[in-house]
Amino acid sequence: MGKGAETRVAILDRAAALATRTGLDGLSIGVLAQDLGMSKSGLFAHFGSKEVLQVETLEAAAQRFADTVVRPALKQPAGEPRLRAVIGHWMAWAGAQGRKGCLFVQATAEFDDRPGSVRDTLATQQDAWLSFLSDAARRAINEGHFSSNLDTEQFAFELHALLLGFHHAHRMTRDADAGDRLARAVDRLFDSCRPQGDA
Amino acid sequence: MGKGAETRVAILDRAAALATRTGLDGLSIGVLAQDLGMSKSGLFAHFGSKEVLQVETLEAAAQRFADTVVRPALKQPAGEPRLRAVIGHWMAWAGAQGRKGCLFVQATAEFDDRPGSVRDTLATQQDAWLSFLSDAARRAINEGHFSSNLDTEQFAFELHALLLGFHHAHRMTRDADAGDRLARAVDRLFDSCRPQGDA
Repeated sequence: MGKGAETRVAILDRAAALATRTGLDGLSIGVLAQDLGMSKSGLFAHFGSKEVLQVETLEAAAQRFADTVVRPALKQPAGEPRLRAVIGHWMAWAGAQGRKGCLFVQATAEFDDRPGSVRDTLATQQDAWLSFLSDAARRAINEGHFSSNLDTEQFAFELHALLLGFHHAHRMTRDADAGDRLARAVDRLFDSCRPQGDA
Repeated sequence: MGKGAETRVAILDRAAALATRTGLDGLSIGVLAQDLGMSKSGLFAHFGSKEVLQVETLEAAAQRFADTVVRPALKQPAGEPRLRAVIGHWMAWAGAQGRKGCLFVQATAEFDDRPGSVRDTLATQQDAWLSFLSDAARRAINEGHFSSNLDTEQFAFELHALLLGFHHAHRMTRDADAGDRLARAVDRLFDSCRPQGDA
């Protein structure tokens, strides 16, 4: 990686961290320049517009998400153990102190009715996340943990919904109730996915 | 109701409709004055601050929510039919064209990390909604539709999560998939609530 590319990665990493506190819409070239102690014109030369900065920040955040939620879970055995690890890492990601929750959930609320490249990026990332959950459920079928009749896309929709329910409740209450509720809901969802007639 | 109170109700009704398009945070005394063709100073005399306007707008929206989601469902028989009617009315409320989805979901994303009277109002309204769902599930137990072992607060958390999942997916995709996914998820949730061993 050349020096220019390294600088860009470092800037975007900082931008992603900043956006978890300000919201993606609160992230502008001016705000980021102040945070980095750089000149606005220098940052403008890197990104050219607020929209490009926002899109690239989402892409940097997706890298962070992969590093903190997905990759550690891949060390767990495929199937239910891996899915449970993903859920645990996601809760830590979304529930971290001093943040506006999950950047992707927050940014979706901000941008879902604003056509453009930011919304397109979010939609692509959401599809990728649902596909990851669906594929993980398919692995759980292959491992014999889940029934072969399971609709894995429906599973992904329901698991994602439960994570949103946790996010919403946790952001309002900040207490342990939301985590306990999610844990029980996940147990019930997983129980409903098991092969029929097996122990 | 005196003339002053009537005017206030009419203004707040318009403010609630406006907030479903601008977001609650986009609702200011200036924006509302322009929408109503009133003077800013006249509106300021009514509300005194943006925060008071936002709180009263949420309260007006809760009246609308009661009129369009809750009250029509109360005409259905208690238990599962009433719960299904509530879900149907909620989907229409959250999915209406030209809106930013459900005002309460949207406003929660905007205000969940901003302590103050707006957030307090949202938290109280969310508690009331979850209590309503929990009470409706208790009625379903009394009617013999749901098992007496059901944890009705857990039921409310899970149903609310599924509604958020629909909201999120519908806002991104705008197609019928989200509605079909929600319908199937609700069927599965209700099936899991039924008395064991009964037909």
